[in-house]
Amino acid sequence: MSAPIDFYFDFSSPYGYLMAEKIDALAAQYGRQVKWHPILLGVIFQATGSRPPADGTSSKAAYMLRDFARSARHLGLPYNPPSRFPLPTQNAARAYYWLEGEDCALARRFALAVYRAFFVDDLDISAPETVFEIAGQIGVDRDKLAAAVQSPEIKARLKDECAAALQAGVFGSPHVIIDGEPFFGADRLPQIERWLATGGF
Amino acid sequence: MSAPIDFYFDFSSPYGYLMAEKIDALAAQYGRQVKWHPILLGVIFQATGSRPPADGTSSKAAYMLRDFARSARHLGLPYNPPSRFPLPTQNAARAYYWLEGEDCALARRFALAVYRAFFVDDLDISAPETVFEIAGQIGVDRDKLAAAVQSPEIKARLKDECAAALQAGVFGSPHVIIDGEPFFGADRLPQIERWLATGGF
Repeated sequence: MSAPIDFYFDFSSPYGYLMAEKIDALAAQYGRQVKWHPILLGVIFQATGSRPPADGTSSKAAYMLRDFARSARHLGLPYNPPSRFPLPTQNAARAYYWLEGEDCALARRFALAVYRAFFVDDLDISAPETVFEIAGQIGVDRDKLAAAVQSPEIKARLKDECAAALQAGVFGSPHVIIDGEPFFGADRLPQIERWLATGGF
Repeated sequence: MSAPIDFYFDFSSPYGYLMAEKIDALAAQYGRQVKWHPILLGVIFQATGSRPPADGTSSKAAYMLRDFARSARHLGLPYNPPSRFPLPTQNAARAYYWLEGEDCALARRFALAVYRAFFVDDLDISAPETVFEIAGQIGVDRDKLAAAVQSPEIKARLKDECAAALQAGVFGSPHVIIDGEPFFGADRLPQIERWLATGGF
């Protein structure tokens, strides 16, 4: 059996959202599993000296906002530009890692629910209460979750995941690694599909 | 008749090369013409505060080199990583604008020949002699060209094109504008095709 595909993303990344909606089904078509790794782009950018894609010049930032929406339409996904963007996502990421230890399928549903809350329903996913509310709606015990995201173990897990992502060469979101081959950006979906279909090209 | 599609690129841009090999045939499928605009990314980056994509962290730079080659394979195009990269391209760009005034089809052949000289044959396209040699091989009068690239009119033309590109919102290469809709990157070819086929989506 092949090793799982690694999918690194920040919950505040629009292209990460697009990839999150597509990668599991695409991988499944080729008999592959995906391991999700929420990370903090702030940590990645600080370590690598990179900048957010929509940062910098006004013409580039304006383009990115337009491209987020058009790329979502191209992939047939709903998208509403968040009124607060970008947002800190450590609460959502920590919640993910705790849930993953409890119930992997539930963690996956939670991650998609967080992305949709942010990029479709314009909720403030930086707020712990919002994260707990999203989790509660899919059956997670809110009190247990609230305690877990404050635990030293879960805080350490997110730090370790960011460090491991850097070690793996991750410099942005989404970043997908298939058997050592890195793909950066939701626009690499056609190349990812071809790689899975052919074993490399 | 529709206005021409605008295609902005730097002769030192690998993704610009990939777009250059594809855009004319794609546009022609939908009855559209393309106006080519060689520009200088150095001027664009200085004005916009952007940075070259392969600049910065070593993990991002290493990824880009890998992605250049893989993206070329994905598009079925030959690609050999240039040993000198990036290179200044004002001589090639000026030559293009002079040729365009003489013979538009010849200018197009020249542009593709310059890209292939750089990204397939690893020639130093920053050198005026190399540019003249490439032009000579497709039937251009080398002496006339050598004089033209030094003329104040052609130098001013390239400056004006860079200023106009900035005005049009260009911040990198390749940048394609179809009826006001901007597409940045060779990876936007599927969206460009869909836009041309549907008139917008």
